Amino acid sequence: MEFLDQRLSQLKPYVPGEQPQTKDFIKLNTNESAFPPAATVVEAAASAAESLQLYPDPTLGNLTGALSSYLGVTESEIFLGNGSDEILAFCFQALMGKGVAFPDITYGFYSVFAKLYGIPAKVIPLQADLSIDLKVYADFSGTIILANPNAPTSLGLPAAAILQLVQEKPERLVIVDEAYVEFGGESLVPYVKDYANLLVVGTFSKAWQLAGGRLGYAVGQVNLIEVLQRVKFSFNPYSVNAMTAACGLAAVQALPYHEACLKETVNVRAWTTEALRDLGFEVLPSQTNFLFVKGPVSGSLLYPALKNRKILVRWFDQPRIKDYLRISIGTLREMEILVTTLKEILTEPQ
Amino acid sequence: MEFLDQRLSQLKPYVPGEQPQTKDFIKLNTNESAFPPAATVVEAAASAAESLQLYPDPTLGNLTGALSSYLGVTESEIFLGNGSDEILAFCFQALMGKGVAFPDITYGFYSVFAKLYGIPAKVIPLQADLSIDLKVYADFSGTIILANPNAPTSLGLPAAAILQLVQEKPERLVIVDEAYVEFGGESLVPYVKDYANLLVVGTFSKAWQLAGGRLGYAVGQVNLIEVLQRVKFSFNPYSVNAMTAACGLAAVQALPYHEACLKETVNVRAWTTEALRDLGFEVLPSQTNFLFVKGPVSGSLLYPALKNRKILVRWFDQPRIKDYLRISIGTLREMEILVTTLKEILTEPQ
Repeated sequence: MEFLDQRLSQLKPYVPGEQPQTKDFIKLNTNESAFPPAATVVEAAASAAESLQLYPDPTLGNLTGALSSYLGVTESEIFLGNGSDEILAFCFQALMGKGVAFPDITYGFYSVFAKLYGIPAKVIPLQADLSIDLKVYADFSGTIILANPNAPTSLGLPAAAILQLVQEKPERLVIVDEAYVEFGGESLVPYVKDYANLLVVGTFSKAWQLAGGRLGYAVGQVNLIEVLQRVKFSFNPYSVNAMTAACGLAAVQALPYHEACLKETVNVRAWTTEALRDLGFEVLPSQTNFLFVKGPVSGSLLYPALKNRKILVRWFDQPRIKDYLRISIGTLREMEILVTTLKEILTEPQ
Repeated sequence: MEFLDQRLSQLKPYVPGEQPQTKDFIKLNTNESAFPPAATVVEAAASAAESLQLYPDPTLGNLTGALSSYLGVTESEIFLGNGSDEILAFCFQALMGKGVAFPDITYGFYSVFAKLYGIPAKVIPLQADLSIDLKVYADFSGTIILANPNAPTSLGLPAAAILQLVQEKPERLVIVDEAYVEFGGESLVPYVKDYANLLVVGTFSKAWQLAGGRLGYAVGQVNLIEVLQRVKFSFNPYSVNAMTAACGLAAVQALPYHEACLKETVNVRAWTTEALRDLGFEVLPSQTNFLFVKGPVSGSLLYPALKNRKILVRWFDQPRIKDYLRISIGTLREMEILVTTLKEILTEPQ
């Protein structure tokens, strides 16, 4: 690494969930949607591909317009990026000059971004029940970033509680990462127009069936959106490609399909929660498309046992959550196989 | 901008060429290919879109394999990113700890990246004939980045000349941005295996008809590729989406189409060069898919005159090249219209 800039020598990259390139596994490890995109999304991709020799529209005007109608905000309050990861990275790069605070157990990328951009990070432990105690953040004067609902815990905070944090210190920025909000959380988007120190980040990866397309958005008042645009146009103005922009537009226009997929996911989540509790699992009350569970046997043992049986779930090698598993909600059929398999594993001689 | 990190307060974003979202213009301003992607590329996009609910393969294995065969390097010598812009940004962020040197007239993004990452930049003037004098770089001990062929001048350096720079100081990194190399330049890729301090960056935007897809690559020895992977996985591991990865693979597999498009571009470039010289233009000998030309009338006047007549070319408001125009090579029909229109403009009373 002789040419590596010393400022990056301590970097520890994020480790994404396994992405096996075979169809052998039931994949419940990266919180992907159990459903394919709508047929109109596939058509939009093909149509956009016909003119790929041309650069995308750098303003992403059509998609911005449709999303602004859907979210109930103005177009100038929307920023689009290459997945919410790129947007979160821009936030760390540009909006955390006074440092950042986030929970010890949350999206693992926050601490990586902080290292990448040399941002001092205050890491605040979750409470014993894995919930976030917002009172502990009250005095922090840097930027606060919260995943709501949180991952991997699946637990959500009421919008009013976060809003209080926003109101307390208007000179302090609060960023809410709403990657999973559609599955049962309370969005802060309706409050953006009232608070200049609130930025909400969302994604098309989970509830919109576009993880493979890489599309995320941020919603905030114009001053904040302009900061993000400034970074984007100093880094990679065209990071959202023409096909993905077209797919995002088609997805927003296929609203009934979007809602049907959400409804089915919530139903299957309820079924799975019950079935796992019947097997003796502690299942946190999820507002997401995954469950965070602690079984009669540690997650450190269940994870490889499931993998051996061709079911991939996510296990985190972190002290406080070593015994847990994070399980994405698949189709009902997949969750039935998961439950049956767990039953087999638990009744085997240990 | 009250929440903006002070480190970014001096940032001046890159201004991309105009991308009008109407079909009214003959677009010769952003060096896009005059040809659409191959039919198999469109099929690949649609097929990949069918499983967009899944994350892309983070290793981009299939595309890396095909590209390694095409370029004649190993897979571990290849890095893929969201257009060469993202890759160049990573280079500035991670590989320029000792500063950077580049020409005063070159790809405008280099100076933006240097500001974004706080890299001291030594800007070295081109010679009077707009060529690069490599002797001036000999003593520089930081990283050297050269676009070869250079933009917007269209002029190329022989590979041997750059290789001498690489050999002179093995402890100094040389990055060669080969965005346009397929149109007549000499690539440094064959020399990567011999020099640990050489990194070559390429793109699918120009010669591969994929500007709208956002795909770029870097070729270097494993140590350099690992640095880029480390930054990517600390920033946005999935920045190349599943559709673009599939399109890139299909494009590399459609080699005869690629070569036919290149050949036609070179032929049309020769025709246009002749025709513009007949009109009294100075036309630099281009190794790219664009021409850099100085007419009997200044580019500052010709640019708006052409735009009024629905032809977009690129004009740079920079002291040394104010009189020039950069004109992308379109189809023969488009270039005929350009030449006829310029003739009309030049024969009008000024």
